[in-house]
Amino acid sequence: MTITVALPDHDMAGRLAGRLDARVDVVVWNAGDPPLDRPIDLLVLPYVVNYGLLEQLAGEVRYVQAQSLGYDGVADHLPAGITFCNAVGVHEAPTAELAVTLALASQRGWPELGRNQVAGLWERSAYPGLIGKRVLLVGVGGIGGEVEKRLDGFGVELTRVARTARDGIHAITELPRLLPDADIVILAVPLSDETRGLVDNAFLDLLPHGALVINVSRGPIVDTDALVDHVRSGAVRSALDVFDPEPLPAGHPLWSLPGSLVSPHLGGNVQSMRDRIDPLIVRQVDRLIAGETPDHIVIEGI
Amino acid sequence: MTITVALPDHDMAGRLAGRLDARVDVVVWNAGDPPLDRPIDLLVLPYVVNYGLLEQLAGEVRYVQAQSLGYDGVADHLPAGITFCNAVGVHEAPTAELAVTLALASQRGWPELGRNQVAGLWERSAYPGLIGKRVLLVGVGGIGGEVEKRLDGFGVELTRVARTARDGIHAITELPRLLPDADIVILAVPLSDETRGLVDNAFLDLLPHGALVINVSRGPIVDTDALVDHVRSGAVRSALDVFDPEPLPAGHPLWSLPGSLVSPHLGGNVQSMRDRIDPLIVRQVDRLIAGETPDHIVIEGI
Repeated sequence: MTITVALPDHDMAGRLAGRLDARVDVVVWNAGDPPLDRPIDLLVLPYVVNYGLLEQLAGEVRYVQAQSLGYDGVADHLPAGITFCNAVGVHEAPTAELAVTLALASQRGWPELGRNQVAGLWERSAYPGLIGKRVLLVGVGGIGGEVEKRLDGFGVELTRVARTARDGIHAITELPRLLPDADIVILAVPLSDETRGLVDNAFLDLLPHGALVINVSRGPIVDTDALVDHVRSGAVRSALDVFDPEPLPAGHPLWSLPGSLVSPHLGGNVQSMRDRIDPLIVRQVDRLIAGETPDHIVIEGI
Repeated sequence: MTITVALPDHDMAGRLAGRLDARVDVVVWNAGDPPLDRPIDLLVLPYVVNYGLLEQLAGEVRYVQAQSLGYDGVADHLPAGITFCNAVGVHEAPTAELAVTLALASQRGWPELGRNQVAGLWERSAYPGLIGKRVLLVGVGGIGGEVEKRLDGFGVELTRVARTARDGIHAITELPRLLPDADIVILAVPLSDETRGLVDNAFLDLLPHGALVINVSRGPIVDTDALVDHVRSGAVRSALDVFDPEPLPAGHPLWSLPGSLVSPHLGGNVQSMRDRIDPLIVRQVDRLIAGETPDHIVIEGI
């Protein structure tokens, strides 16, 4: 059995050359290229992608493999008959690493220390630090679990929240009771109807003065205007990797407010990403060659 | 038995009011104040201190309690007959927290991302990240142990180095063999004749291209000129909390070189420091009241 795999760039094609089964035909195809001229068994999307691209694939493609974990918005564009797989296992650890980086950098003063370095200004203040702080982790999936593992040695008090309560985990409906005791909130939930706008004025008003809000999942989980108001007044601080709108526009207050730390959506985007995405693609291709369905199907093509 | 304790500021005196034994007389005394007018059993130094201050204390003071852990230079100024205690247990954890903060921030791009935030610039690059990196921890004392605990969840390969080899720990003499395999070096050793200038041109030349040097102990452990040369050429990156000279002078290249992250000697200086220094002082006073010698004596007054 021969299969055809479309990869999004020559860099990835080069890396996978010799690592894919001999029965695999590889084509390189990305947004803006001429339409695909043959049926594709597995199409790998670029890491950064406008899902509108999917609408061009009708009738041509069996499986789409994303390089990202979140897939909010895919269902609006995915043609019938195409099955969509996300990149489980690729981004959870580096995204959690970034969440902890944002927590530490904010707690140790980096919004200010970064500006001071640019100004060449030696100015010593005592910042809050992370030791002893009460961390509310909203989301205990792949990213949340990796965050928890990394926070283990830092002497924090961790409270975990998920959609439904279970052993040692609070339900998201308990947030109003939990927020007043949170020094730091880490958002690690998928974007859904339930989580869109979760962090609104009511949420922020319940936090203690000066609490830190960290978002490494998707921008629209936070109501940006509400957050900006609260950061501007000093009621909360923020350390965000994702924004609504994204990219964060030039001149947006979150670039310059004293309590705001900005990361340009780099969650899983580390140099070692290829060490995780490449083997995932090889495994998916091997499954197809063996006549199996790929792993990590999140939307069935019907 | 009544004892007299000198505290360096009214803030600390206020915090300890009611927590010290009733048989304690408290005076507030700091550099620049008129000479002490009575014998002092325990004098607490300010957190940031010029040890020249100690020379004024001859004949007046039995014990000096520092608020810091390092005490390099104290012996040059301490009058005979005064016993000197350092602040074991106060700074190790926050200093280790800062070391890991510097590691994460550098590995996730903050020298550049901090500048980009000041400029309001959304620019996504893949930075190295910490996952899978080989960390060489030089120093396995109080700070080193706390660093190790915090790195535990990050998926690094840790190699430990101390003055002498023991189980799972390499001797400092093995560094020439170990440095070529270190992506990140964390310096957590006291300043001594043995460690002064440890990180010199020869040390830096042995590191892989682009390795990261983190120093949270004392500035003179690193030869600043050698480091600047290597950071300027891109051979290494640095993330330093301590410098030689310190404060880092205005216009110094380490403020602006692309691979340099600067923290203004904030190791143990977090808002929670008083939660650790105040109980230490209460314990030391209680020991004196009980006729015992204080803990953490590092220089005996003879």
